[in-house]
Amino acid sequence: MSTVTVYSTQNCPYCRMAKAFLDKQAVTYTSIDVGTDAAAAQKMIALSGQRGVPVITVDDEVIVGFDSQRLNELFGTYAANETYDVLIVGAGPAGLTAGVYCARKLLKTLIVSDTIGGQALESWAIENYMGYRMITGEDLMKKFEEQVRTLDVRLELDRVSRIAPDETFFAVTTVSGAILKAKSLILTQGKQPKMLGVPGDEKYLGRGLSICATCDGPLYKGKKVVVVGGGNAAVQTAIEMSGIASSVSLIARSTIKADPVYVKKLETIKNITVHLHSQIAGLSGDRFLDRITIKTEGQPDQGIGVDGVFIETGWTPNTEILDGLVDLNERGEIIVDVDGRTSRPGVFAAGDVTSVKSKQIIIAAGEGAKAALEAFEYVMKTG
Amino acid sequence: MSTVTVYSTQNCPYCRMAKAFLDKQAVTYTSIDVGTDAAAAQKMIALSGQRGVPVITVDDEVIVGFDSQRLNELFGTYAANETYDVLIVGAGPAGLTAGVYCARKLLKTLIVSDTIGGQALESWAIENYMGYRMITGEDLMKKFEEQVRTLDVRLELDRVSRIAPDETFFAVTTVSGAILKAKSLILTQGKQPKMLGVPGDEKYLGRGLSICATCDGPLYKGKKVVVVGGGNAAVQTAIEMSGIASSVSLIARSTIKADPVYVKKLETIKNITVHLHSQIAGLSGDRFLDRITIKTEGQPDQGIGVDGVFIETGWTPNTEILDGLVDLNERGEIIVDVDGRTSRPGVFAAGDVTSVKSKQIIIAAGEGAKAALEAFEYVMKTG
Repeated sequence: MSTVTVYSTQNCPYCRMAKAFLDKQAVTYTSIDVGTDAAAAQKMIALSGQRGVPVITVDDEVIVGFDSQRLNELFGTYAANETYDVLIVGAGPAGLTAGVYCARKLLKTLIVSDTIGGQALESWAIENYMGYRMITGEDLMKKFEEQVRTLDVRLELDRVSRIAPDETFFAVTTVSGAILKAKSLILTQGKQPKMLGVPGDEKYLGRGLSICATCDGPLYKGKKVVVVGGGNAAVQTAIEMSGIASSVSLIARSTIKADPVYVKKLETIKNITVHLHSQIAGLSGDRFLDRITIKTEGQPDQGIGVDGVFIETGWTPNTEILDGLVDLNERGEIIVDVDGRTSRPGVFAAGDVTSVKSKQIIIAAGEGAKAALEAFEYVMKTG
Repeated sequence: MSTVTVYSTQNCPYCRMAKAFLDKQAVTYTSIDVGTDAAAAQKMIALSGQRGVPVITVDDEVIVGFDSQRLNELFGTYAANETYDVLIVGAGPAGLTAGVYCARKLLKTLIVSDTIGGQALESWAIENYMGYRMITGEDLMKKFEEQVRTLDVRLELDRVSRIAPDETFFAVTTVSGAILKAKSLILTQGKQPKMLGVPGDEKYLGRGLSICATCDGPLYKGKKVVVVGGGNAAVQTAIEMSGIASSVSLIARSTIKADPVYVKKLETIKNITVHLHSQIAGLSGDRFLDRITIKTEGQPDQGIGVDGVFIETGWTPNTEILDGLVDLNERGEIIVDVDGRTSRPGVFAAGDVTSVKSKQIIIAAGEGAKAALEAFEYVMKTG
């Protein structure tokens, strides 16, 4: 038997997922909290060559981060050749809600995802999920996950790498090598934010650096904020934040490319400063982001104090695995109709990976419910 | 000053709304719980000529049910001629969520609805709203309402009777006579239960015939009741009433079409009798409904004595006030696209009143958020 050690901190959701995975596979391990044990933290940094949790050692092997592929290779025990009624790709708000709805319809359901909670985990103060006046993304996703776990749904921490439609079912391959069969699919694998691409991107996310103005905007009343981007989303966010924050700097890599109505409005607002041909070259601050460096073409770098930075430079939907399975829009998002159907029968989609414009937890959850109810109808009709 | 008395039961949301309205208008009243005070219950039945709460007496006038129009006429105090950015019609899960999203976008927002919580109030055990493993519809709607009330949103208990589009705004008239102006509209007025369609439907409503088991259920302790319908709502109500009434007959027009989880439960309960391929063909009784005729395919009509009948057969969308404002589908539902837009610019819709197929609280909430974010964009562009 292998000797397994998990270096983790208390509030790290990926640490929790790693431990949950090991618990489920009945792997014995030693857990070390590097948030309280400084010597262990030093040892972990020496072993892994980096400052980030979780780090898992398996005998002499060092696994950095929650690497679901490697953990599955080492300890995974996939079920034998079963055919599922529904395979849900992703376990964010959309996928978990779809899981609950599928299970309540007594569908044989498998969720495959490398994280539980998706992008929602990055929100540290959610005030617009109905039913909770204020909750962290992690706590809300724990509640979603618990709701799934009370029901008969299989949840595998793995990542789908390929989907091949067959005549009667879909063959789904994962990065850990499993080949799974399903009568229908619900695609909820989300999107990835385009970050700034400078050191501190990860450190300050949720600590002054935000990828969701709709979520976090109200927390910056009377503060000094920066919006990064030059498209509609960035200009809209700048206009919106000008009514909340004391001042707004809009930093665009080239020029402003928003609709003329927004540009006109932008020009009338006095507490917005626009920096064209500019980008953020540096982030600093102790626990929270409080200063940035702006690099403008043909000018010396400029340091300014800030309370918050909103990134509005776009998202990349996680659709690279689909390879023509369903129709995508010009942004690479899966095109869905009002009931969550894609261009291919038997394939449904929900959440941030879809063409639905607004990306919000409550919207993703509603879309997940729709997709599940459509998948139920599809399976009843065809199976 | 008028002498006001409210006859109510503990778990009746319409009673709570009536009291909340009176509280808001600073009206002093006496509250009597007819669920525990049998003598008062008799007095209420004698005064109102019916068995249903709330009943409100204002001096010599008897107001049956939560009649927001009459209460507004007696005690209402509308604001002066203001123009709102957004007027939300309805305050169910969709309308309340839209309210939260609009307020967070700093839109000047008014919600007009004759109830708070909408059809969700009728659900006694919700297990598929993500974030709560089990909650009553009333408790969940209280949470939604509280979330709205923490924000700067005006909420008027009234009913919209007419909407006239103008060049620059919409003129909205209410049954209490208010004329309101708004730059954009979000329609979330839900749907209405279908009645039996036999003589006596209106005569016995509130006199043995009920469309709200959550409200009126407690008045049928140890009584003989009938539930009409074959879907989730009907089976849920039958299960609920089996714990209150002495016996329950479930009358379904064809077969039972509820979720398997409910069907399984139904089969284990001894005091429920199921009549398939059946319908109610007649209602009778002197002042109160006390007998029904059941018509079953291929069998002679059967008369049975009953104390109460709960209708759970489906719904009609509340779109009669729209009068061509937006395009409807063949079921009379407002046609929306994936982002909650209707056929008319500036008019958005969400929840059970729309063409979205599945009617669920989490879906309505998600659609409400979409509609609000679209309304925000519309107001930014045009205003």
